[in-house]
Amino acid sequence: MKNIQFSATSAVSHQDLLSLMPQVRAAQQTLVQGSGEGNDYIGWLTLPDDIQCQIQDIQATAALLRERCEIIVCIGIGGSYLGAKAVNEALLPFFGAYHQQQPAIIYAGQNISEDYLYELQQLLTHHSFGIICISKSGTTTEPALAFRLLKSQLEQQIGESAARERIVCITDAQRGALRTLATQQGYKTFVIEDNVGGRFSVLSPVGLLPIACAGLDIQALVDGAREMKNLCYNQNVEEHPAAQYAAARTILYRSGKTVELLANFHPKMHYISEWWKQLFGESEGKGHHGIFPASVDFTTDLHSMGQYIQDGERILMETVLSIEQPNHSVIFPHDEQNLDGLNFLSGKRVDEVNKMAELGTMLAHVDGGVPNMKITLPQLNEFYLGELIYMMEYACGLSGYMLGINPFNQPGVEAYKRNMFALLNKPGYEAESAAIQARLKK
Amino acid sequence: MKNIQFSATSAVSHQDLLSLMPQVRAAQQTLVQGSGEGNDYIGWLTLPDDIQCQIQDIQATAALLRERCEIIVCIGIGGSYLGAKAVNEALLPFFGAYHQQQPAIIYAGQNISEDYLYELQQLLTHHSFGIICISKSGTTTEPALAFRLLKSQLEQQIGESAARERIVCITDAQRGALRTLATQQGYKTFVIEDNVGGRFSVLSPVGLLPIACAGLDIQALVDGAREMKNLCYNQNVEEHPAAQYAAARTILYRSGKTVELLANFHPKMHYISEWWKQLFGESEGKGHHGIFPASVDFTTDLHSMGQYIQDGERILMETVLSIEQPNHSVIFPHDEQNLDGLNFLSGKRVDEVNKMAELGTMLAHVDGGVPNMKITLPQLNEFYLGELIYMMEYACGLSGYMLGINPFNQPGVEAYKRNMFALLNKPGYEAESAAIQARLKK
Repeated sequence: MKNIQFSATSAVSHQDLLSLMPQVRAAQQTLVQGSGEGNDYIGWLTLPDDIQCQIQDIQATAALLRERCEIIVCIGIGGSYLGAKAVNEALLPFFGAYHQQQPAIIYAGQNISEDYLYELQQLLTHHSFGIICISKSGTTTEPALAFRLLKSQLEQQIGESAARERIVCITDAQRGALRTLATQQGYKTFVIEDNVGGRFSVLSPVGLLPIACAGLDIQALVDGAREMKNLCYNQNVEEHPAAQYAAARTILYRSGKTVELLANFHPKMHYISEWWKQLFGESEGKGHHGIFPASVDFTTDLHSMGQYIQDGERILMETVLSIEQPNHSVIFPHDEQNLDGLNFLSGKRVDEVNKMAELGTMLAHVDGGVPNMKITLPQLNEFYLGELIYMMEYACGLSGYMLGINPFNQPGVEAYKRNMFALLNKPGYEAESAAIQARLKK
Repeated sequence: MKNIQFSATSAVSHQDLLSLMPQVRAAQQTLVQGSGEGNDYIGWLTLPDDIQCQIQDIQATAALLRERCEIIVCIGIGGSYLGAKAVNEALLPFFGAYHQQQPAIIYAGQNISEDYLYELQQLLTHHSFGIICISKSGTTTEPALAFRLLKSQLEQQIGESAARERIVCITDAQRGALRTLATQQGYKTFVIEDNVGGRFSVLSPVGLLPIACAGLDIQALVDGAREMKNLCYNQNVEEHPAAQYAAARTILYRSGKTVELLANFHPKMHYISEWWKQLFGESEGKGHHGIFPASVDFTTDLHSMGQYIQDGERILMETVLSIEQPNHSVIFPHDEQNLDGLNFLSGKRVDEVNKMAELGTMLAHVDGGVPNMKITLPQLNEFYLGELIYMMEYACGLSGYMLGINPFNQPGVEAYKRNMFALLNKPGYEAESAAIQARLKK
């Protein structure tokens, strides 16, 4: 069977890669032996095995929600949002909303936009809907705010008792506001384990339930992740793609490339890149270090960011996510007149043009001084996304330890929250409120 | 009347700003007198006045398409796509597709994805649709390919003669494949002037027709742009926001900030940032110089990129696009139990929370070493987007001339195309084909 492949032949030399391998091996030992900083957050390492016993329950819960709801609203932010969003966007058809595909999966609690919440509430008024609320504590502002609004709307629309059958909470096993509420109300729940951080949680119920609700095959997703786990655990670091990727980007970062562009040539991959940005940015952006993660969707962004990539500041490295086989076939038609001059493409599949754009772009960017790496998925499906997710998570762990930081915390995320609470006079923030008001008066 | 405001008090000192003003004035003279490189592409400067005589024709054409079509497909890429997409996404309701709002505006020719085109063709099979094809030459691969496919589908669905009434071309006045075809077929057309480059074309028919097709008020958009043009032309550089913004970012770039983050706190602004990325990236990314443009949608991305921004490599400056007043109102409800601890927000508008997140974030990022600028729109509507568009274009011209480059060309965009044509054996690329095949064999 084919697996995801990694290649960096035009970015780093084989010799440089080999030279770094002792460091990669050391990082891997730190990671899998749990001897490094953040070792209380490495439950994701064995998640592909550990989660198996919950798959059936998740599938059954999803089936009930799908039966009962025209719209399923998934409430969550950051790691409680991006994994499911990424997989669902990658695998669901474009234009599903125009086809009135049901149930529709819509996200909330990922922003504090008044217009967004207003327009969402208007939409829900006309539909039977359910809610999946994902929050470890139940008090993160964005999801808690959305949940209070939408839960109250649901109860008004169908009554508290019927609402109970359409609300599922994914939260801490015992503590926190959402656990307390779920116990009181008798909501169906799943557990966010203490040793799995948000951005590493897509293969837990956090990601799997919304993905199953979209009608996708979570067993295949987990199977793919397990396959990649076996590669990571059993192959030499020289051979498995996670270590190769971690090594190559580390070498490039140390050579002065401070920005990594994750590029795709398939628009459905857009949110995979967003998920990746959280994974790496939040893991590595510490102590004034770390690669700045950015993403581009090609070929469209070749007509916006292409000029900069080709010839701007030489601070970029680029990683291309390539999909070997598209899922559908469109043959480019012949045209007698050929005014557009495209008859040289007649009879070719559209993807063949796309692939030559991809290859042509990689060659051009290398010529322009942007080292290119490539990660190849044989196809865009649950199995290979499972492989990709695990590969990226594992690479992130290695990469972080080589950078010398704790890849599993995110202390900097609290800064804006503290200010926000102070500005909103949240109880318990009285001293901060006074300080920030004094600062603003200056 | 209120206008867009710019502020950079926490990013650059007043003294530094004043010191740069002679350079800003010189850049402005070069720009408005047309004495600099790229002066054959500054038609956009007077577009808010020049376009007025075409508004009625554009509105009438849009009205016909809206009457005849359930779906209007806008074909274009880069500057022939992003401006309209940005304004439409900013001003249309969320969830329009779920409401079956008609006509739906869907985009094509902005990628070469076989799955995208397949699924689009499937959707169009079930609907009456029309096409706006936007291409100066008519031979740019992505839009030409999509147009050949969809035109042929439309003709098959309703016949060549009825299709003629639903196809509009925006192209060169006289030359090129699309002009020739439009003349032959008698399609309604609008002109892309020679002196307006793609990324500066949103206030021409390129942007205005798709925006009018979405039912938006293009007169107000143009009025806003004209208002900003008057500010730029009549105020001192110390006073108008375009010059202030250009000056501040130039100072920060020279101090080592190589990445500019455009941040919003309103999800509808996402594609405004994409448009901005093309505008600045393609204008400035030259000769191994230029600020790398990136964007973040807050607060969602505070839970992904927030950690990096707060504490990663100190190469970032940040510009916040702030919307003073939301268009709808949602009051946060009281909850007797208050398990989520959010009763301190009861009775507040959701936007008030969002605004404190915005302010709290700016303070936190400044504390973390990320200089913050702020552009304030009084409201999210056509008029202020018109102001914003013109302001950004003008700032881009100033910024580019201060950088010492020609802001109006994009030589680097051709590199991938040449390789792609060589790889696809396009007639006329025989030598390049041989060379690239030899290179790949190595």
